Amino acid sequence: MQIQFDNEFGNNFDLSPIFKPKSMVVVGVSQQNYMNPGTTIFLKNFFEMDLGSNTFGVNPKGGFIESQKLYENIKSIPINPDISVIAIIPKLAVNAVKELIEKNTKGIIIISGGFAEAGKEGKKLQDEIKKLCIDANVPLIGPNCIGIYNPPYIDTIFLPTEKLILPRKGNVAIISQSGGIMLDQFFLSCYERNIGVSAGVSIGNKAVINEIHLLDYFAKDVDTNVIAFYIEGFEQLQGRKFLESSKKISKDIIIYQGGKTDIAKSAVQSHTASLASNFQIAKSAFKQFGIILPETEEEVGNYIKTYSVITKRKPAFNFKNYLEGNVVVLTVSGGHGVVCVDLLENYKLKIVKFETNEIEKLKNLVNETIQNIGSFNNPIDLTGSATDEDIIKILDFLFQLDKIDIIIAIVVPYPPAISIQIGRKISFIARHYNKPLICFVPYIEKYNLIREALELYNIPVAHTVSEAVQMAAAIRDKSRAILRLSYRQ
Amino acid sequence: MQIQFDNEFGNNFDLSPIFKPKSMVVVGVSQQNYMNPGTTIFLKNFFEMDLGSNTFGVNPKGGFIESQKLYENIKSIPINPDISVIAIIPKLAVNAVKELIEKNTKGIIIISGGFAEAGKEGKKLQDEIKKLCIDANVPLIGPNCIGIYNPPYIDTIFLPTEKLILPRKGNVAIISQSGGIMLDQFFLSCYERNIGVSAGVSIGNKAVINEIHLLDYFAKDVDTNVIAFYIEGFEQLQGRKFLESSKKISKDIIIYQGGKTDIAKSAVQSHTASLASNFQIAKSAFKQFGIILPETEEEVGNYIKTYSVITKRKPAFNFKNYLEGNVVVLTVSGGHGVVCVDLLENYKLKIVKFETNEIEKLKNLVNETIQNIGSFNNPIDLTGSATDEDIIKILDFLFQLDKIDIIIAIVVPYPPAISIQIGRKISFIARHYNKPLICFVPYIEKYNLIREALELYNIPVAHTVSEAVQMAAAIRDKSRAILRLSYRQ
Repeated sequence: MQIQFDNEFGNNFDLSPIFKPKSMVVVGVSQQNYMNPGTTIFLKNFFEMDLGSNTFGVNPKGGFIESQKLYENIKSIPINPDISVIAIIPKLAVNAVKELIEKNTKGIIIISGGFAEAGKEGKKLQDEIKKLCIDANVPLIGPNCIGIYNPPYIDTIFLPTEKLILPRKGNVAIISQSGGIMLDQFFLSCYERNIGVSAGVSIGNKAVINEIHLLDYFAKDVDTNVIAFYIEGFEQLQGRKFLESSKKISKDIIIYQGGKTDIAKSAVQSHTASLASNFQIAKSAFKQFGIILPETEEEVGNYIKTYSVITKRKPAFNFKNYLEGNVVVLTVSGGHGVVCVDLLENYKLKIVKFETNEIEKLKNLVNETIQNIGSFNNPIDLTGSATDEDIIKILDFLFQLDKIDIIIAIVVPYPPAISIQIGRKISFIARHYNKPLICFVPYIEKYNLIREALELYNIPVAHTVSEAVQMAAAIRDKSRAILRLSYRQ
Repeated sequence: MQIQFDNEFGNNFDLSPIFKPKSMVVVGVSQQNYMNPGTTIFLKNFFEMDLGSNTFGVNPKGGFIESQKLYENIKSIPINPDISVIAIIPKLAVNAVKELIEKNTKGIIIISGGFAEAGKEGKKLQDEIKKLCIDANVPLIGPNCIGIYNPPYIDTIFLPTEKLILPRKGNVAIISQSGGIMLDQFFLSCYERNIGVSAGVSIGNKAVINEIHLLDYFAKDVDTNVIAFYIEGFEQLQGRKFLESSKKISKDIIIYQGGKTDIAKSAVQSHTASLASNFQIAKSAFKQFGIILPETEEEVGNYIKTYSVITKRKPAFNFKNYLEGNVVVLTVSGGHGVVCVDLLENYKLKIVKFETNEIEKLKNLVNETIQNIGSFNNPIDLTGSATDEDIIKILDFLFQLDKIDIIIAIVVPYPPAISIQIGRKISFIARHYNKPLICFVPYIEKYNLIREALELYNIPVAHTVSEAVQMAAAIRDKSRAILRLSYRQ
């Protein structure tokens, strides 16, 4: 069967056996070198994943590792592997692929580098492998990647687990052209923000499996609500297909794009052999299809967090209400209010104006000290004299005001009369209203009790004022994305 | 003696006794209410500062607190206090100021709010107090502030210490119009970045003591190398005087400005009764005088950190060399290189281009695997196969290349062959060269050993790629600031 090399082969691969394999072969396991990538992958899946002794290693010299026999060649392995991981040099990889296909493997991950990204010769080997896999309808991830992280089923990250920072399980799928970006900018960022990850995939040179296949896979994955990509470049045709696929998906799709500037584009070429896309053109097309495009690493973290948290909310928010991005800021520190309003304007969010009667009402809700020294315009500044009760009463009022789309509550918990129960008190008010609330609570250990009480009720918590503003922007952007998408469908 | 209210009184106050007082009076200490601000300040200085039993409290009903007598009025206090803290309502404060001046206090801090920021009546009381202090040449900090944090001498933050996140001692002085911004955006940000603080001052309505007095004070303070301000507004005359003062100072001066947008400006008015300046006009004047103006909370943290760390470097850097901001990026993760170059262009830093012979030289320095799969343009990508030795050899070469001003080394420590000694190894190379190096090492507990080894040698360490880029911008900006200042002097 001859298949064209123009990526017209998409969507026919069954990726389930490679995300939840029952057996694994690792080609290239060293007995001696504990730093060897294949050895690390073998040991990880043998010891740390459910695969256990269904992990099989290949080493031309045979031998044993952890009492488990190493096979001298692929043929002699006693099973037909669900997933096969190749960690040997490119010129030996082609034959390994052939033999693994003969073994009826259900998928292959090539972690080795030195293929298309390294020049002409590598490109030739990659194309050979690509043809073999497509002809046999075997999904191939990589080469030049770290593969799949989906514990407790599979983990092909060839770096020692103790060297990594791994997020908890959750509802965000991460697909990254760069393994490093997945491990650091996504995993670390998720870890720090308490964002749960359903699975991570590093796709490297994406010879066969690309973003489109993974978008389709995670669209159907019941554990995933948010699908986040790091993309350095699309072939033009792939970009169009990606957009077509995205139309059918109601989950949040986030793309963080690297290689926007000219020099970065040439760095992309030597990194994963991709053609960095023209970002400006791509951007407007993506936006039209309701895809979210944060610009910075920080925005990526905050957007993912917002969607991860608020999609768990029951009853669900009615996002068509927040298109305008009308924000009110409640603070106990005047300076934070000032800084927040500056940032809201940068993000083109609107700052709700209160009528005189509303200001009077707000004032009458709080204790006498605050009536004298507080400020009841937007930002509402309750000052360091704020008590839990003042905050709750004001929030209750703000939730009911129709002209407000999003509330940012800057609950710096330093004032003496703010208690450690403030998180749960706020959650108990928020759940009565269909209006998003974002809280600012410093993300430090001694205030975890406040933060957790909020996040357990699906209220996103920001560590800085700019994080809070980016979260508000994320909600406004999601409303607009839903609207745009509804026009296209 | 009649003195005009136009701030022409500046620079004559001796602030030493209020930063290092030998005795303190707190007016407004409650025996019953543990949340009372005066009580908190009394107990803090009594228990936590060196002042101990030289802390005296005033309560009209007398009584005792912690076995220490409370005095019924100011007159009956048995000493002449160095510093007096007023924590009572505005209309009672005027008389307290009078009595404290009669007691020959060397300085007053009024933490109470409800003065000029609260309206006409408060403004009148504030003006009365201002006149009393200026006539008596007594420096007054506040009102509507949290005063001075300068342990182990004095701490007038009226919030319980256990509720705060306090940075270690170091060389950065912080002066903030907003107490909340000082405690959260500065102190927390310093704590997280391991930045040491020499002292913090929250100046609130700045009736008498303003930024200019504190600039002069910290210019002479031997413990301070970096002076960082949060400013919401200057009176025009003050702005000019500030710039004149700054010309004489060789320390780094950083201003973070709040109230840039229109709505934020009106929030400033109700917060500290200041006129928010026209930011664009102020900005160009400040820049001309070599003052550094980071735009965001994150930039503030990263700029302060950079200056705090590199000013400790011996022998000192020759900053006139880094005007161009020619940066090279060394990475072990290709994606990080791509993202870094995108950000460098955003900050208008230049990306050094290598000649063919330089690329050859770079390639010959590393192990064979990297020679095949690495990339030796800028960004230099050593890939996950990098060893300590590869990194050190490349750095040694880069330090010697004249066309490079600043090196960013993205040392994600996940690759198996990067050791825990990499920090100290890098430090030992860096100290031989007069060229700034910025390292990226995730700021997490298990990699503290690497980070500390770098920071002990005054190499700033970034937690994210954007932090690293902002640190490089900080160095370029400092070079330019020194140049600009040299033209004006």
